[in-house]
Amino acid sequence: MSNEDKNLPLFNRRQLLGTTAVAAAAGAATASGALGLSGGASPAMAQERAKWEVKPGELDEYYTFFSSGQSGEVRIVGVPSMREIMRIPVFNRCSATGWGQTNESLKVLTENMRPETVEFLKDRGGVYQNGDLHHPHPSFTDGTYDGRYLFANDKSNTRVCRIRLDVMKCDKIIELPNQHTVHGLRVQKFPKTGYVFCNGEDGVPIPNDGKVLDDPKQYRSIFTAVDGETMKVAWQVIVDGNLDNVDADYQGKYCYSTCYNSEGGVTLEEMMSKDLDWVVVFNLKRIEEAVANGDFKEIGGVPVIDGSHGSKYTRYIPVPNSPHGINTAPDGIHFVANGKLSPTVTVFDVRKFDDLFDDKIEPRDTVVAETELGLGPLHTAYDGRGNAYTTLFLDSQVCKWNIEDAIRAFKGEKVNPIRQKLDVHYQPGHNHSSMGQTKEADGKWLISLNKFSKDRYLNAGPLKPESDQLIDISGDEMVLVHDGPSFAEPHDATIVHASKINPLHVWKREDPFFAEAVAQAKKDNIDLMVDSEIIRDGDKVRVYMTSAAPAFGLTSFTVKEGDEVTVYVTNIDEVEDLTHGFCIVNYGINMEIGPQATASVTFKAAKPGVYWYYCTWFCHAMHMEMKGRMMVEPKSV
Amino acid sequence: MSNEDKNLPLFNRRQLLGTTAVAAAAGAATASGALGLSGGASPAMAQERAKWEVKPGELDEYYTFFSSGQSGEVRIVGVPSMREIMRIPVFNRCSATGWGQTNESLKVLTENMRPETVEFLKDRGGVYQNGDLHHPHPSFTDGTYDGRYLFANDKSNTRVCRIRLDVMKCDKIIELPNQHTVHGLRVQKFPKTGYVFCNGEDGVPIPNDGKVLDDPKQYRSIFTAVDGETMKVAWQVIVDGNLDNVDADYQGKYCYSTCYNSEGGVTLEEMMSKDLDWVVVFNLKRIEEAVANGDFKEIGGVPVIDGSHGSKYTRYIPVPNSPHGINTAPDGIHFVANGKLSPTVTVFDVRKFDDLFDDKIEPRDTVVAETELGLGPLHTAYDGRGNAYTTLFLDSQVCKWNIEDAIRAFKGEKVNPIRQKLDVHYQPGHNHSSMGQTKEADGKWLISLNKFSKDRYLNAGPLKPESDQLIDISGDEMVLVHDGPSFAEPHDATIVHASKINPLHVWKREDPFFAEAVAQAKKDNIDLMVDSEIIRDGDKVRVYMTSAAPAFGLTSFTVKEGDEVTVYVTNIDEVEDLTHGFCIVNYGINMEIGPQATASVTFKAAKPGVYWYYCTWFCHAMHMEMKGRMMVEPKSV
Repeated sequence: MSNEDKNLPLFNRRQLLGTTAVAAAAGAATASGALGLSGGASPAMAQERAKWEVKPGELDEYYTFFSSGQSGEVRIVGVPSMREIMRIPVFNRCSATGWGQTNESLKVLTENMRPETVEFLKDRGGVYQNGDLHHPHPSFTDGTYDGRYLFANDKSNTRVCRIRLDVMKCDKIIELPNQHTVHGLRVQKFPKTGYVFCNGEDGVPIPNDGKVLDDPKQYRSIFTAVDGETMKVAWQVIVDGNLDNVDADYQGKYCYSTCYNSEGGVTLEEMMSKDLDWVVVFNLKRIEEAVANGDFKEIGGVPVIDGSHGSKYTRYIPVPNSPHGINTAPDGIHFVANGKLSPTVTVFDVRKFDDLFDDKIEPRDTVVAETELGLGPLHTAYDGRGNAYTTLFLDSQVCKWNIEDAIRAFKGEKVNPIRQKLDVHYQPGHNHSSMGQTKEADGKWLISLNKFSKDRYLNAGPLKPESDQLIDISGDEMVLVHDGPSFAEPHDATIVHASKINPLHVWKREDPFFAEAVAQAKKDNIDLMVDSEIIRDGDKVRVYMTSAAPAFGLTSFTVKEGDEVTVYVTNIDEVEDLTHGFCIVNYGINMEIGPQATASVTFKAAKPGVYWYYCTWFCHAMHMEMKGRMMVEPKSV
Repeated sequence: MSNEDKNLPLFNRRQLLGTTAVAAAAGAATASGALGLSGGASPAMAQERAKWEVKPGELDEYYTFFSSGQSGEVRIVGVPSMREIMRIPVFNRCSATGWGQTNESLKVLTENMRPETVEFLKDRGGVYQNGDLHHPHPSFTDGTYDGRYLFANDKSNTRVCRIRLDVMKCDKIIELPNQHTVHGLRVQKFPKTGYVFCNGEDGVPIPNDGKVLDDPKQYRSIFTAVDGETMKVAWQVIVDGNLDNVDADYQGKYCYSTCYNSEGGVTLEEMMSKDLDWVVVFNLKRIEEAVANGDFKEIGGVPVIDGSHGSKYTRYIPVPNSPHGINTAPDGIHFVANGKLSPTVTVFDVRKFDDLFDDKIEPRDTVVAETELGLGPLHTAYDGRGNAYTTLFLDSQVCKWNIEDAIRAFKGEKVNPIRQKLDVHYQPGHNHSSMGQTKEADGKWLISLNKFSKDRYLNAGPLKPESDQLIDISGDEMVLVHDGPSFAEPHDATIVHASKINPLHVWKREDPFFAEAVAQAKKDNIDLMVDSEIIRDGDKVRVYMTSAAPAFGLTSFTVKEGDEVTVYVTNIDEVEDLTHGFCIVNYGINMEIGPQATASVTFKAAKPGVYWYYCTWFCHAMHMEMKGRMMVEPKSV
């Protein structure tokens, strides 16, 4: 197919990627690309093109919740425009909102912190300042999104967060005991969320207190189910190997994880030595019964079940070495494990798991297809029309294939399940289709999250952006319509139809997020919406003030050097979008106060002098004059 | 003009913005909009439209360096695509790169910190964790960008940073003495940068040690010139009033600042009481002579010159109350001060400043036009064809007007300098035209940085994005082509043609950024490109390791609880875009290591046990297996 006559982007064949990745792994798998490349477009291109353009003033059709990997935040991106609409700080420190500094955020960051972590961080600012946020997944009711919450994991410091989708703020963070890293995360789809499933990747001694060190035989990995309503650990399961990604069925009976390093190795060579690893299936009903019946050990304050080989709670299904992504299809029946080091995807039928757990069939009897797609299959998305879209990391392609044809081919029929391969740029990891992780998959859009961008954007120096590409999958052929650079690392994403999400425009005064400030004000006989006053309580000073464009309720306040000062600012503006900020010059203090919200920050008045405070969120023509003075009397006075 | 037949976005007249801003300031200025509104497009729209689309695989024509206000970082955005290509952490803490945690970044953050600030931050992590980055401006040679550096200010903690444009990293931060806040920042255009001019906004006692508190008469504001080569303070000038924005001429003789609060007030009412404020002009030659001749006081270790009313170093030119932006035109002759509370812009002729300083003319004799444009003029950009584009905050419009016609009208001719008004959405602050702050202004693009977005994007909850809009100014009429949401706060931006910027693709090993690590390795007899070794030095442990996809040079290392551990990672991959990361699980450690770079981090091994470290920047099909173990022996062992 020629592109020249279609006013299309030219998809020149990429120069060979000079990465060591290609060299190292190429030998490990069979050649791909037998179908050749289809980087072009369907004849209906002009019509398709019109669909993705979001003109000034128009709204996107989808919210996309992007993880940000090691950036530690969640990003909201509009699809199809690919515009980043908002950042939600979670495991990172945010200069703009004061996340990690305000009392409200510190409560979220610390209230479910393990006691040993509190002790560890005592000399390090009291909170982790980094995170590695990998998998953002919204809560479900009856197989589709219900708009309540978004859950995500911190691989680096073994935490799980919850974001309230009504205010788009993180309201809960829990640190998982026993577990070391939490990598794959997905949620229960039916009857509702319910459980948040959290894969422990690395094995360590349990407890990890230094008594056991270089004895890998004693290392174990953990699978955790968190209760998404209470954000407490419901139960944990000890497993063999290293858990990677996870997904759940549409029946509320099973969840399943890819699992590598069946060798129990601690070096690359050891981890790669066997030909087969596993998909681990967890039987939710049997595990719940075990918890109810006491068939567990309590470790680190939570029930821990032994799900090693041979237990009745799990099954280990052999698949080729180092499977990676695992994705349930919207048909409610199938899921796919992606081969990574194998050029194949393995298709399972969840209806066979009852028999598997009843030992009526063998583990591999649950496999209904195993299709060779190309080099480095990592993740699979769906269009709701029976097709699957799998990223090929090494081939730098997305492969579209048909599930039913794959099953027929596995049975021996002469049918080619592969429909099209599309170049992406370069080396894709996750991909996601619109509503594709729900029973309402609508088959309009696919985003390929590529790990390298190289020459696709203006050179930004040695550190390049990653590259998210938008692909139109509404027609018979995939069409690449947009390249989107992004900062490290849009590891994963979920595309949610805008009709599912209904955020507030201003805060409600009774919101629990700042309830502690409201309670303290009540004790101090302060009406936060009206009063601006200073309460001294020994060497603790509570400064209450309103903010209404363009003025704070206090034009100055005075404290003493050494005081512990808490400033409570209540934004009494009722106007949508009218956010205020509170920043104290040369004191390292800044926070956001949304309309109708209260925010607070506590600090030591450690140096005397005059320090102006000012509004940091532009609010008014006289915004620059919205300021006041904190006067700190020297100790000697 | 009707829009319906042009397949255009509909620019419905916005509902009246319900902000208190409109109500408060409306009475202070005359009615605008006599020209009516032109939100539509020229007949050449279809042709213009094609220009702004950047298809997959195509590169942008311009780098745009965006400030991020209270987010504390710099952002690189491509124009015309408006895609964010890179974040550069500066005054913020970055979870992804380890900015604020690596030894290399801590050196930048602390090496020019004032001693009193070191003391103040001793109990607060040693560095400020926030900043308010307002004005990013590249270095000049002979009136245009030379691609060496980008400078920007931190309003909140009174700092100035420099970013190296070869590697797109911040390499210098200086904290300004005496000054309290640094707001406006621009650089010397001729013969080169040269000076970085830094406006002190708020007045405080000097020294600000608490001996003077609530006595505003003793508060003074400071203007600082930083040497952009050495990043040391060259000199400071004490001024009357609060300095706001600043710009420089094309002759290397003068710079000039808008200055509000001539009243010396400390409340909104006091600051607004007079009808007139000032433009303050600084005579660089006279100031340099004063420094050479000793006509200064040394305060806080730098020469401070008295530039109050009546000094020979400055002139105070009256302009209407509370002027805001100040912008030199590419003609090298004119600059404009924007009225904010006055509906006018005031045009000056810099050729008259020699006579002004020689007292041959009166201050207002330097004014060659004062044109009423509309409500809330804040900033002005230029197209190099004699036209100016001024944001009208309260009218939510950009006003295009002609400078020569404004001068003719000021002389009494019957000519209307206003060419067009275009709705923007909503309430614009800064605006910027392509190359518009240089003598090479090319008149292609204008970005309007709007402070509110309200209903322009999918609702992201109570906290909305700001809104950057791209406007085609290449034709006779301005055409709005793109809405870009952005996180708080794209306060200012500079659009630089891509030909001016030539970043490296990989680091050079001799780079000064990690020279200290190289020097330490040499002392330890380590070849960083080859060796992976552990050096013990009392309770200090230096762990050296290479990283090459998909393996670290060490698969494990052992330290003792309580050790001070420094890990040096050298990325020996030579491939463009092949960044590695180093993250220690449950230890709160993460950093980026660019290709051919060395990065290091120092921490206390405060808890015993097995802690996996892993690569956080996706590098290879076996990236997930790129890991190792830090084993921390308990104290008791």
